Amino acid sequence: MNFLEERIVKDGVVKEGNVLKVDSFLNHQMDIKLLDQMGAEFKRRFADKPINKILTIEASGIGIACVVAQHFNVPVVFAKKSQSINLDGDMYVAEVESFTHKCINHVIVAQKFLTPEDHVLIIDDFLANGCALQGLIQIVQSSGATVEGIGIAIEKGFQSGGRIIRNLGFQLESLAIVDGMNAETGEIQFRDQSKTELNSVEKAEDEICRSATLD
Amino acid sequence: MNFLEERIVKDGVVKEGNVLKVDSFLNHQMDIKLLDQMGAEFKRRFADKPINKILTIEASGIGIACVVAQHFNVPVVFAKKSQSINLDGDMYVAEVESFTHKCINHVIVAQKFLTPEDHVLIIDDFLANGCALQGLIQIVQSSGATVEGIGIAIEKGFQSGGRIIRNLGFQLESLAIVDGMNAETGEIQFRDQSKTELNSVEKAEDEICRSATLD
Repeated sequence: MNFLEERIVKDGVVKEGNVLKVDSFLNHQMDIKLLDQMGAEFKRRFADKPINKILTIEASGIGIACVVAQHFNVPVVFAKKSQSINLDGDMYVAEVESFTHKCINHVIVAQKFLTPEDHVLIIDDFLANGCALQGLIQIVQSSGATVEGIGIAIEKGFQSGGRIIRNLGFQLESLAIVDGMNAETGEIQFRDQSKTELNSVEKAEDEICRSATLD
Repeated sequence: MNFLEERIVKDGVVKEGNVLKVDSFLNHQMDIKLLDQMGAEFKRRFADKPINKILTIEASGIGIACVVAQHFNVPVVFAKKSQSINLDGDMYVAEVESFTHKCINHVIVAQKFLTPEDHVLIIDDFLANGCALQGLIQIVQSSGATVEGIGIAIEKGFQSGGRIIRNLGFQLESLAIVDGMNAETGEIQFRDQSKTELNSVEKAEDEICRSATLD
């Protein structure tokens, strides 16, 4: 197990409905030393990429992105989420479906902060069905910038987001991939990333995101 | 002028209605080196305080808080904002009025992350009428923890939040206090913090926050 998997086993809490609570160190209270370790690891995994900007999405992605950014010596842009938008033409906007909240959210980035010269690393805390992440990718592509890679803290490997995004050809690096959880025993099964992909999600039913970039 | 005031003059944009846009370096795109300088300065100003936790509020406070936290070697807790709440008893909740959005927001922190043993530094990007900040203070006090200080990037000195909070006896340190702005000329007037307070806000009409901690 790596440092993040060890921490998840130590302090994560498995709840009914495939919920993994990591709010004591990742997304409500944040262990800054852990985020710093994550930054060093992402720097190692994306060492050969000409990254000049990190993009994340509010709220819990921001803390991770800012600490990771210190390892790359680049600025962070965070996308804003809003149910209602006032399209004033200076914004890139992607529509993103939220399965959790059963609604459509808008993901918004000011156009001036993404240009064709930008080489972007996308950072977020969680990846499940990947809808928000697909919205961020669409926004980067709309701007003419390049997605150099995607760094995720915890991927729910039994949902389809990771597979879809890897199939699109992106370098997606998740520090911990959870392939299964048992709320009764508290047991968590991590994917062994040193081996070939186990294709354990092949049987998962795809939650296809209905999303589109708005002009 | 200090480093933040210089940056505001260089890259801030004054808009009609006393709006100061700093989204190119502070609250949409974030200059991580600048945040790091802010962290060093807050550490200097709160050097004698036994701070063991930083509290902030989503979204734009999170990035600053996480970088500042590295200078104090402490974890960050961020309060969540929500218009609707599901009070399950494990949360501290303060009602906060938003003058901008003309609504009541709830500021929420899980009880397990604030205890009477905690010595808290509150960090945020902006201070204007101070309603959100008063909500955070209420939450810390509800938990029995101690507010050791408050660190703000930019205070609007012509609004009453700063004065109210200093009058309550808190050590409030704002790295830049804007006492006036001119949207036509783009000019920004900073308070000289080396002198005694100018009481320039005495004439400002107080926007008293109607807020309360919910049990």
